[in-house]
Amino acid sequence: MGSIVAENRKTLMLFSGRAYPELAEEIGSVLGVAVTQAASYEFASGEIFVRYKDSVRGSDAFVVQSMAAPVNTWIMETLIMVDALKRGSAKRITVVLPFYPYARQDKKHRGREPISARLIADLLKTAGANRILTVDLHTAQIQGFFDGPVDHLFAMDTLADYIESKYAGRRMTVVAPDSGRVRVAERWADRLGGCPLAFIHKTRDPLKPNQVVANRVVGEVEDRVCLIVDDMIDTGGTICSAAEILIEAGAADVIVASTHPVLSDPATERLSASKISELVVTNTLPLTDDKRLDKITVLSIAPLVARAIREVFDDGSVTTLFGGLS
Amino acid sequence: MGSIVAENRKTLMLFSGRAYPELAEEIGSVLGVAVTQAASYEFASGEIFVRYKDSVRGSDAFVVQSMAAPVNTWIMETLIMVDALKRGSAKRITVVLPFYPYARQDKKHRGREPISARLIADLLKTAGANRILTVDLHTAQIQGFFDGPVDHLFAMDTLADYIESKYAGRRMTVVAPDSGRVRVAERWADRLGGCPLAFIHKTRDPLKPNQVVANRVVGEVEDRVCLIVDDMIDTGGTICSAAEILIEAGAADVIVASTHPVLSDPATERLSASKISELVVTNTLPLTDDKRLDKITVLSIAPLVARAIREVFDDGSVTTLFGGLS
Amino acid sequence: MGSIVAENRKTLMLFSGRAYPELAEEIGSVLGVAVTQAASYEFASGEIFVRYKDSVRGSDAFVVQSMAAPVNTWIMETLIMVDALKRGSAKRITVVLPFYPYARQDKKHRGREPISARLIADLLKTAGANRILTVDLHTAQIQGFFDGPVDHLFAMDTLADYIESKYAGRRMTVVAPDSGRVRVAERWADRLGGCPLAFIHKTRDPLKPNQVVANRVVGEVEDRVCLIVDDMIDTGGTICSAAEILIEAGAADVIVASTHPVLSDPATERLSASKISELVVTNTLPLTDDKRLDKITVLSIAPLVARAIREVFDDGSVTTLFGGLS
Amino acid sequence: MGSIVAENRKTLMLFSGRAYPELAEEIGSVLGVAVTQAASYEFASGEIFVRYKDSVRGSDAFVVQSMAAPVNTWIMETLIMVDALKRGSAKRITVVLPFYPYARQDKKHRGREPISARLIADLLKTAGANRILTVDLHTAQIQGFFDGPVDHLFAMDTLADYIESKYAGRRMTVVAPDSGRVRVAERWADRLGGCPLAFIHKTRDPLKPNQVVANRVVGEVEDRVCLIVDDMIDTGGTICSAAEILIEAGAADVIVASTHPVLSDPATERLSASKISELVVTNTLPLTDDKRLDKITVLSIAPLVARAIREVFDDGSVTTLFGGLS
Amino acid sequence: MGSIVAENRKTLMLFSGRAYPELAEEIGSVLGVAVTQAASYEFASGEIFVRYKDSVRGSDAFVVQSMAAPVNTWIMETLIMVDALKRGSAKRITVVLPFYPYARQDKKHRGREPISARLIADLLKTAGANRILTVDLHTAQIQGFFDGPVDHLFAMDTLADYIESKYAGRRMTVVAPDSGRVRVAERWADRLGGCPLAFIHKTRDPLKPNQVVANRVVGEVEDRVCLIVDDMIDTGGTICSAAEILIEAGAADVIVASTHPVLSDPATERLSASKISELVVTNTLPLTDDKRLDKITVLSIAPLVARAIREVFDDGSVTTLFGGLS
Amino acid sequence: MGSIVAENRKTLMLFSGRAYPELAEEIGSVLGVAVTQAASYEFASGEIFVRYKDSVRGSDAFVVQSMAAPVNTWIMETLIMVDALKRGSAKRITVVLPFYPYARQDKKHRGREPISARLIADLLKTAGANRILTVDLHTAQIQGFFDGPVDHLFAMDTLADYIESKYAGRRMTVVAPDSGRVRVAERWADRLGGCPLAFIHKTRDPLKPNQVVANRVVGEVEDRVCLIVDDMIDTGGTICSAAEILIEAGAADVIVASTHPVLSDPATERLSASKISELVVTNTLPLTDDKRLDKITVLSIAPLVARAIREVFDDGSVTTLFGGLS
Repeated sequence: MGSIVAENRKTLMLFSGRAYPELAEEIGSVLGVAVTQAASYEFASGEIFVRYKDSVRGSDAFVVQSMAAPVNTWIMETLIMVDALKRGSAKRITVVLPFYPYARQDKKHRGREPISARLIADLLKTAGANRILTVDLHTAQIQGFFDGPVDHLFAMDTLADYIESKYAGRRMTVVAPDSGRVRVAERWADRLGGCPLAFIHKTRDPLKPNQVVANRVVGEVEDRVCLIVDDMIDTGGTICSAAEILIEAGAADVIVASTHPVLSDPATERLSASKISELVVTNTLPLTDDKRLDKITVLSIAPLVARAIREVFDDGSVTTLFGGLS
Repeated sequence: MGSIVAENRKTLMLFSGRAYPELAEEIGSVLGVAVTQAASYEFASGEIFVRYKDSVRGSDAFVVQSMAAPVNTWIMETLIMVDALKRGSAKRITVVLPFYPYARQDKKHRGREPISARLIADLLKTAGANRILTVDLHTAQIQGFFDGPVDHLFAMDTLADYIESKYAGRRMTVVAPDSGRVRVAERWADRLGGCPLAFIHKTRDPLKPNQVVANRVVGEVEDRVCLIVDDMIDTGGTICSAAEILIEAGAADVIVASTHPVLSDPATERLSASKISELVVTNTLPLTDDKRLDKITVLSIAPLVARAIREVFDDGSVTTLFGGLS
Repeated sequence: MGSIVAENRKTLMLFSGRAYPELAEEIGSVLGVAVTQAASYEFASGEIFVRYKDSVRGSDAFVVQSMAAPVNTWIMETLIMVDALKRGSAKRITVVLPFYPYARQDKKHRGREPISARLIADLLKTAGANRILTVDLHTAQIQGFFDGPVDHLFAMDTLADYIESKYAGRRMTVVAPDSGRVRVAERWADRLGGCPLAFIHKTRDPLKPNQVVANRVVGEVEDRVCLIVDDMIDTGGTICSAAEILIEAGAADVIVASTHPVLSDPATERLSASKISELVVTNTLPLTDDKRLDKITVLSIAPLVARAIREVFDDGSVTTLFGGLS
Repeated sequence: MGSIVAENRKTLMLFSGRAYPELAEEIGSVLGVAVTQAASYEFASGEIFVRYKDSVRGSDAFVVQSMAAPVNTWIMETLIMVDALKRGSAKRITVVLPFYPYARQDKKHRGREPISARLIADLLKTAGANRILTVDLHTAQIQGFFDGPVDHLFAMDTLADYIESKYAGRRMTVVAPDSGRVRVAERWADRLGGCPLAFIHKTRDPLKPNQVVANRVVGEVEDRVCLIVDDMIDTGGTICSAAEILIEAGAADVIVASTHPVLSDPATERLSASKISELVVTNTLPLTDDKRLDKITVLSIAPLVARAIREVFDDGSVTTLFGGLS
Repeated sequence: MGSIVAENRKTLMLFSGRAYPELAEEIGSVLGVAVTQAASYEFASGEIFVRYKDSVRGSDAFVVQSMAAPVNTWIMETLIMVDALKRGSAKRITVVLPFYPYARQDKKHRGREPISARLIADLLKTAGANRILTVDLHTAQIQGFFDGPVDHLFAMDTLADYIESKYAGRRMTVVAPDSGRVRVAERWADRLGGCPLAFIHKTRDPLKPNQVVANRVVGEVEDRVCLIVDDMIDTGGTICSAAEILIEAGAADVIVASTHPVLSDPATERLSASKISELVVTNTLPLTDDKRLDKITVLSIAPLVARAIREVFDDGSVTTLFGGLS
Repeated sequence: MGSIVAENRKTLMLFSGRAYPELAEEIGSVLGVAVTQAASYEFASGEIFVRYKDSVRGSDAFVVQSMAAPVNTWIMETLIMVDALKRGSAKRITVVLPFYPYARQDKKHRGREPISARLIADLLKTAGANRILTVDLHTAQIQGFFDGPVDHLFAMDTLADYIESKYAGRRMTVVAPDSGRVRVAERWADRLGGCPLAFIHKTRDPLKPNQVVANRVVGEVEDRVCLIVDDMIDTGGTICSAAEILIEAGAADVIVASTHPVLSDPATERLSASKISELVVTNTLPLTDDKRLDKITVLSIAPLVARAIREVFDDGSVTTLFGGLS
């Protein structure tokens, strides 16, 4: 009678923020588990309230939030959701961020700046997150900002399978939209069988230093299908002007593959008017109807995320399926 | 030559979030110090960026943010501002929150809820805040949520001086708008020379349990000026219905004193239509023009906050001026 | 042969401090588990020593301590017990505090004061406590002082069931002994079917400010059974003088319901001499024989605590039984 | 007008717990600074309250507490004092513990035990202590228990000067009262000019294992003044029986030097009845009148502690005066 | 469909640093589990890289590292191994240090020194270690340096069994090589049936203070087998000179028992030339061939460590086997 | 007499690890401050010991360590130095790492790997470092690995001034040695007045996927001086093969600019045999005589680091001098 011994089972529970509940539902549908219901709303003052409708005690909790606009609201909601799980005695809390917010502020570009991507990691930790699961970080170093395990998934296979199938037989060049993304473009070139590489180089006129800036293509693009690759499309300025330069340089066609369709204004307008013939993205972020241009193809990230969640829950029996998972 | 010895001076610098820069400027004006300029803006995606224009190294930094709507945006901006100060080597960072956000979520009312007021304190600490300076917390226990010094100022003297002067000679009753604010009302009654106390009690019909709710005045209000006191006016529902009940119970007049004019919709409409003849508030939160009803009197909190900041900077030579300061 | 796989069972173990072992034993008896034996004693110097007689490795440990006098001794004993469990590899440590100590120092009333209730929470965390289980906190905000899950139980049902049964048919008014407890009294009034509410208001003579203080009843009490409710009775001064005022105001009878019978001197003497006809308490704190007045009725808190412990161990299958549990 | 620049002065303030205020006053007297007044008392329930009467903002605070009986009360008081200083914005908090409590529980002797000496260090840190200043730790490793600077003073010079002067010309042997204190005794033997060393060895009869224990002197003591050295005298059992064995072994005289006079019952009785002719201690702990035997000589530790405090405040210009200080 | 419930198994995995893989393999062999393979190597720059070949998710990981020379390299490798386990989602990480490094820097001997033994504990914690398992700490207080459970094993039984068997019938004296190890020697004397005790005392000539130092035996050693006991043999200076003194004092034979054979240069040379007839050690550290003198007997620590690991994994069913385990 | 008030001065002290004392001395010489002397050495066992010869209390300490081989030894020495400063009451500790170690392990390339660059930041923090000052991080994101201010200096101006002067009038192309360094090369191209950009692209034969890898130049290099830029030269493999490809592609000359001369074997041999005509580096790492090839030009980093240290000490009056400083 000195102790009570009981079987120790583990329970996967799925939670969704309000930013993009359809994605969490799709993930749940692949996993075979419903999203746990919650009363989540904003008071008139804008303060967010969350209360789960079922007990979360002892659960292996996965909180899915798609960091779309208004991003600060969804960050706060995520923190509050995690706090409620922690105080409700969830056993382990994994925050699933298909798109990691503030990823571009990953260093001080100049003095007296924040490093907001690190701040986000610390805020999640403080609220009670034990782990992060994310897709295609802007820079892979962000993994190291979180003091705990980060499962970093890659959407390249999902996107590349589609492109290989659709553009089979075309002569392709992979193009980095700026000098900082050449490494990523090289990985795509390898994935697509070793096709050529190019990038857009911002040059200055050597005779008028610090004044005139021109963009120039470095690499061979003439008469080829140019595939611009980037982790995210925000306002679309960079890729649209890249497309123009590529066409001027003789490209046969310009297509774009990008994991995260941020598509902030005026991205839709710009893309619509651009020389880009197709933009392939995933649904790590929601696309409202006004953004669903005909030239945009959306592939679902849910199967990849669902398989990763299952692996994390099961302690890794399917590791080999994901390039970036341990 | 074994070391370099230098004088160690301290430098007060004032920073302002974008929620209500006029308040920070007014505080700076009382202090005799300009708000340090910063490049603060949102990217198209909604992510916030902050960069200070002057060096903040070694400074005793005071970050003023008025937690108005959109509150989650301003919370994130504050955290990012603090992170930039920490990484820019500010010596000490005091976050000045004239209105503490999420203060009403200061406990779990039921299971599986967050305690967001504690979360806010922890987020500030994580970002790098060393101290908090705030005014009229919803509950004083929130002081204990922060792991560090909290200077808690009271606006009662500011508000009461005005009311005493304006309503001198009138027979007044202090009224708590609900049972949880009777203690505060008692403090006001003392401050106003020992006038009577009343409160609004939510009763149920004993014959129909759990069903019918009625509000009832407990205490004497007939033919008296009823001063409803509350820390904040949010949607105004509670005080407007309290005013109605008080008038029904024979009150001669109903006025309201409240530190924080949250005034979320439909507060303005309700107040306008209500029996309340005057609402006295401070400017801990900004009042947009559409909210500036004739019956609203706004007193400035800036002198009180400025004196407290100076005291904190000077290590407390003026302690005795503030009831709640150490 | 790359790993050894074993079943992962969980084991509830119950530990008791020396303040009130009878309560832990009663809880264990309800749970069907014996209190784990320990060598616990004080050296001649007053330093406390604890050593458990059985292995605690991997256990889900519940440490019950009743924070009676000498309270500082029992706090230190609890911290030392938790340290020994942590270093002995207990898997999870829940500190069960039927009465949370230092709860009244939950804010700085004036400057240069401690917030001892927060300090207690931090000390428990530092020693190694993962969770707290407690009953009727002096203010619910104390939940937020602990950085982890707090299960907050309410004794109101236990006390109210008894009072409803014994005083059925009597016309009752619920009375808050001071202005800070009106909210709690309102909750009791609801629980008892919507009976009237009153409170004791400390007034000053407006002509002699800061000098004379008088207590006055606000609310209707004449010819009614007045039920004073409070979370704890310490020296009894407040409720005994409240009783006197109520009788003077025409109350038919005065009874008291209070969860925590601290009963510090001269509470027993005062209660004995008072107009209070019955005081109903729980056994969250021990009552020595000299305190067991005839007019005191003690109800056991053990069933409530035991059910909560079982729920925590079982990950929450019985949530709905407890108002305050998640 | 971008910032306010002021001179940055530092201010030493001295605080005293209630265990032994005379020591703090003596230290203050040497330093030339009064102990800051505080309202410190226990409520009827035993809970401690502290409030400082002067502002402590920005101060370099030194909290002196002598960890006499009731030790747990004084530990809690110290933690509460530190919390109040932290929340009152003291700049740096040094806890001065002339006698470090729970020092003997510095390791697990067997399984399932606490390491209370480490716990004490962590509790002080949690409350807000930045530094510890202490005298003659039971084991020097306790320095490493605190996560921050520890200034460790030695009373040996104070005690040895007295003994050298009084017993000049006598043939002396330094005796360790048990096998664990031989190192300390060796340090004394060096300090006293290289005199012989002995210790008391607890032996078992090899024929009756695990049963009979006898104490035996190892080393030469015949016709010599035996100086037993130990860091503390608690119940006096060890040194009194050591004295007896030494006299039996032919010692001419037995004297004792010990920094900390814990003198728990029945120490006074035992010492009084013992063969010890003189016991030299310091006042790191208070001696109540009933403990002030004629054979006890008390030397003041205040000058040493005061000089160390001054050094800490002045950033170490007098380091060389103290063996153990950095 | 609200959650996925699965059985929760636990998995012991064993990892080995590169310092002494044979020991980890022997431990694994006793446990019946293979060491998990890893790619571990140094880049040309000396930076270490580690990658595990199998998934470590959810594992109860035991990392064995023998802190031999080059000790700083192996410390860094251990930290990196732990970091990789933490980021790879191991559930619990126990660092098995048969020999705890930097144990002799367990206090500040003088000012401005590090306490490296505490630093090591903190570094392990920071990297992600949850627990430490170690053998014969230089001082037992080091247990308290780690903020978590430490299982402290003793090799005395292993060593003493061998010595009792080999030297049965010989008259033995246990000798501490210096004044700081007399307590340990006393424990050995008890273990060996109560045999006499002696130690080497460093004396000074009283006529020439601070100048001449001589070593002297305290205790009876004539015509006896002298067993010098120490936790480690580093350069061998202390024990070799002790052996000489003992022989001079008439010892019949000198043997040494020591858990940790550090054997830094010139230990082998010294031991070889010394009067010591046998040195009995364990394999907590590797012995390269050039150090394997005929007079050295090596006993394996693997069975003891393996049993402890199994106990930790199984939550302590075999506690009673190990003196120092909880 | 209630407090002692004193002037609060600040004191810059400079400390050097043993990896490359000449650099610290040169920095000290620029600053006008001698390196504080320390007893730093390794015991025979390899354990490092450090003791400062002067008091460090209250100092603003700058610890310079050049992370050359054996890098793990110097990391441990740095941690121990910082621990000794922390325990010796230094006021603020800045670790100056001209070359940040383990910077290339800044993310998990595949699963079950460490993120050692983050680990290093955490170890420094744990030991007691408050700030880091470093030069040309391998990736700028490493700034975000440290929880505190990081001053990140750039050597580009130092290197570029030399190259501009020496190669004035030559037609130059800036070359990134691989796809991940194109951004850095672009920054150089801007700095050098807008000259062309090229990079080495690793391609695969599209007909034989996954098998043959060839390196190819992307960009115009014919008849131009090719300046390969990289943050560090380790074994030299990448840049030497890049040089070969460039020459094959018609480059007139190949020169290299690189901040950190790691120069691990066989770098010297490779460089010597290569087509590179000049390699310009700084002395962030020491160059032993055997590595001082005629074609290597070493520029001193000491003036830049010294100015930054002075700025940090002075709270930033010279910010504008350093691109990366706040």
